[in-house]
Amino acid sequence: MGNLISSIGEFGLIEKIKRQLGNKIIGDDTAPIIIGDETYLATCDILLEDRHFLRSYPPEKIGFKAISVNVSDIVASGGKPIWVLVSLLLPDINISYVNKIYEGIKKACLYYHCQVIGGNITSSEKIGIDVFMIGKAKKFMGRSGAKIDDLVYTTGVLGDSKAGLELLLKKKKSYENFEKQLIKKHINPIINIKNSDYISSFATSALDISDGLSSDIFYLSNQSNVGIVIESKKIPLSDSLLRFCKKYNYDPIDYSLSGGEDYEVLFTQNLKSLPAQAGEIRNPKKYFCIGKVVPKRGVWLDDKKLINKSFSHFLPVTKPPK
Amino acid sequence: MGNLISSIGEFGLIEKIKRQLGNKIIGDDTAPIIIGDETYLATCDILLEDRHFLRSYPPEKIGFKAISVNVSDIVASGGKPIWVLVSLLLPDINISYVNKIYEGIKKACLYYHCQVIGGNITSSEKIGIDVFMIGKAKKFMGRSGAKIDDLVYTTGVLGDSKAGLELLLKKKKSYENFEKQLIKKHINPIINIKNSDYISSFATSALDISDGLSSDIFYLSNQSNVGIVIESKKIPLSDSLLRFCKKYNYDPIDYSLSGGEDYEVLFTQNLKSLPAQAGEIRNPKKYFCIGKVVPKRGVWLDDKKLINKSFSHFLPVTKPPK
Repeated sequence: MGNLISSIGEFGLIEKIKRQLGNKIIGDDTAPIIIGDETYLATCDILLEDRHFLRSYPPEKIGFKAISVNVSDIVASGGKPIWVLVSLLLPDINISYVNKIYEGIKKACLYYHCQVIGGNITSSEKIGIDVFMIGKAKKFMGRSGAKIDDLVYTTGVLGDSKAGLELLLKKKKSYENFEKQLIKKHINPIINIKNSDYISSFATSALDISDGLSSDIFYLSNQSNVGIVIESKKIPLSDSLLRFCKKYNYDPIDYSLSGGEDYEVLFTQNLKSLPAQAGEIRNPKKYFCIGKVVPKRGVWLDDKKLINKSFSHFLPVTKPPK
Repeated sequence: MGNLISSIGEFGLIEKIKRQLGNKIIGDDTAPIIIGDETYLATCDILLEDRHFLRSYPPEKIGFKAISVNVSDIVASGGKPIWVLVSLLLPDINISYVNKIYEGIKKACLYYHCQVIGGNITSSEKIGIDVFMIGKAKKFMGRSGAKIDDLVYTTGVLGDSKAGLELLLKKKKSYENFEKQLIKKHINPIINIKNSDYISSFATSALDISDGLSSDIFYLSNQSNVGIVIESKKIPLSDSLLRFCKKYNYDPIDYSLSGGEDYEVLFTQNLKSLPAQAGEIRNPKKYFCIGKVVPKRGVWLDDKKLINKSFSHFLPVTKPPK
C-alpha cells in the first residue's frame, strides 16, 4: 500500500520532491531566472472549484483572484508581474461564464500592468484556473535570508479572508457592512504591487502569507534556519475582523494565525542596516512590525512555543478550506 | 441559459477569448517573449486523469509524457526547452505514485536538457500534471507564415498514437509486438528536439500535430490564410499502423488524419528559397512532403474538400479521447 500524501502533508511532499530532483532552488514563492543582467521570476498557482472557490461565486471575481494570487507571489519575491499564461480547466458550461472569468482576468491584468500572452484549455469535471506568471525583480528575495535580530513585518492586516470565507459559507440572507468588507477581502484580494520595491530594496527575506501566518512563519523559520518570536498584540487586525469576532465570539488572534489567503507579505529587515531613504520608499504605506528573529530555534507566539501544523491541502475536497 | 462551450468547441472558445482580450498573439503553440536580442518561448499543457490518461497507466510514463507534450510545442515553434514549472493536481494518493510521476519528469528533463525550477501542488479529485515551460529559439516560428507554393511537411509518421490508445483500451491479455509499439507511441511519445534547428532555420510556418492532422492542417490554413492540398498517398504511415489496420480492418489514412497526439511537427517550406546547407542540418532525419499550399481557399485531401471538424475537447469526460 504505502503511505498516503496526507500522512506527510503538502509540504512534506514538496520536501520529498526537492530531494528527488536534487534541486535546492525549489521552495520559494517564485523561481528566479537570470537572463543577462536581469532577474526574472516564474511562478504558478491555481484556483480550483470546490477547493478554492464555489461555482456560485461571481466568475469575474474568480478570474481577477486567479491573477492576484500569482501577483502576490511575484511581489513577495520583490518583483512586478509582466507575462501571464492561463491554463483553463472547464466543464461544458455556458460560454458567458467563461467570458466573465476572462473579464476578471483582463481587469486584473490592466490593474497589475501585466499581459496574457497564451494559455491552454482542457475539458474537466471541475473549473480550474491555473495561472503561470513571469515577473521581473531588481533583486530576487527568497525565504532564506532572515538573520538574528532582524525584525519581522507584515504589509497588512491578517485574518480577514478566513472570516470572509466563513461568512460566505453561512449563506445569510443579508450581511452587515463590515461582513461585506470581510467577504470582499476573501473573494477579491487586491495586491499592493508597490510593496515589491520596498521588499527588493530593504528586506532580508520575504514570502506571501497565503497559508496563514502560523504556517508561513514556520517556512521562514525553517528556510532561514532561525527562530522567530511573534508578539500577539502587535499583529494588525482590521476593525471588521474585530467586530466579526465580537459578534460570533471568536478569538481574532486565531484568525490572524490560521487564516490563509491573506496575500500580504511577511518579511524581515534589519533596522541597523536600513538606509535613510527606506522611509520615503515605504511612505505612505505603513508596515507592521510583529516580531523578531531570535537565536533560539522554533517559532514562538509571545512566550508559547508553536507547533508546526502547516495547513494540509490534502483534506477531503468538499468545500473551500477553512 | 446561453450557449454551452460544446456548441462552439475549444477553438471557437479560443477565438472568442482572443477577441475579448484584444490580443492577436494568442493562438500559436507557444508565446514568444523577446528579452534583449533573445527570443524565449512560453507554453503550457496539461495531462488530466480520465481525459488524457488513466490511473492504471505507468505513472513514470505519465510524468515523462507531461514534459514531452510541452517540448513538442516548443520544438514546433523552433525552440529548445530550458525551464519547467510543474503544477500538480493530486488526490490523497500514495506518495510512491507521486514519486514515480516525478521520476518520469526527472528523466524527461534529463533527456530534453531542461530543468524543473518550481511549481505548485493542489489537492484535487483527479490527478493532473499542468506543465509550464520556457524555451528559447533562434527565431520564433508561428502558424501564419505559409505562402502559396510552399510545400507541406511532417517530421514523422502519423496515426500510431490513436491506434495505440485504442489497443490499450481493449485491455487485451497479450499484445503482438507491433501492437506494443503502437501503445508505446501513445504512452511515451518521444520528441526529436533536433527538429527545432531545421524548423527555425528553414520553415515558413509550423505547428505540432497534437489534435490530429485533419484539425491541425485547418489551423495552418486559417492562420496563414491559404489553401492546402494534402496527398493521401504521401502521408507517412508506420509498418505497425499498417499491420494494425489490416488486422482490425481499419483505414490507415483515417488514423493519420484524425489521430491526435502524434507530436510530430507539421511545417511548410519553400524549396526555391532553401539554402544548400538545409540538407545537412536535416540529415539524418528524413522529413515527409505530404502536400502543397495553394491559392484556392480550404483544405483538400487529394480532390476531396475537407470539412473542419476540429476535435472538440468538450465531449463528456469518461475516458481518454479517441
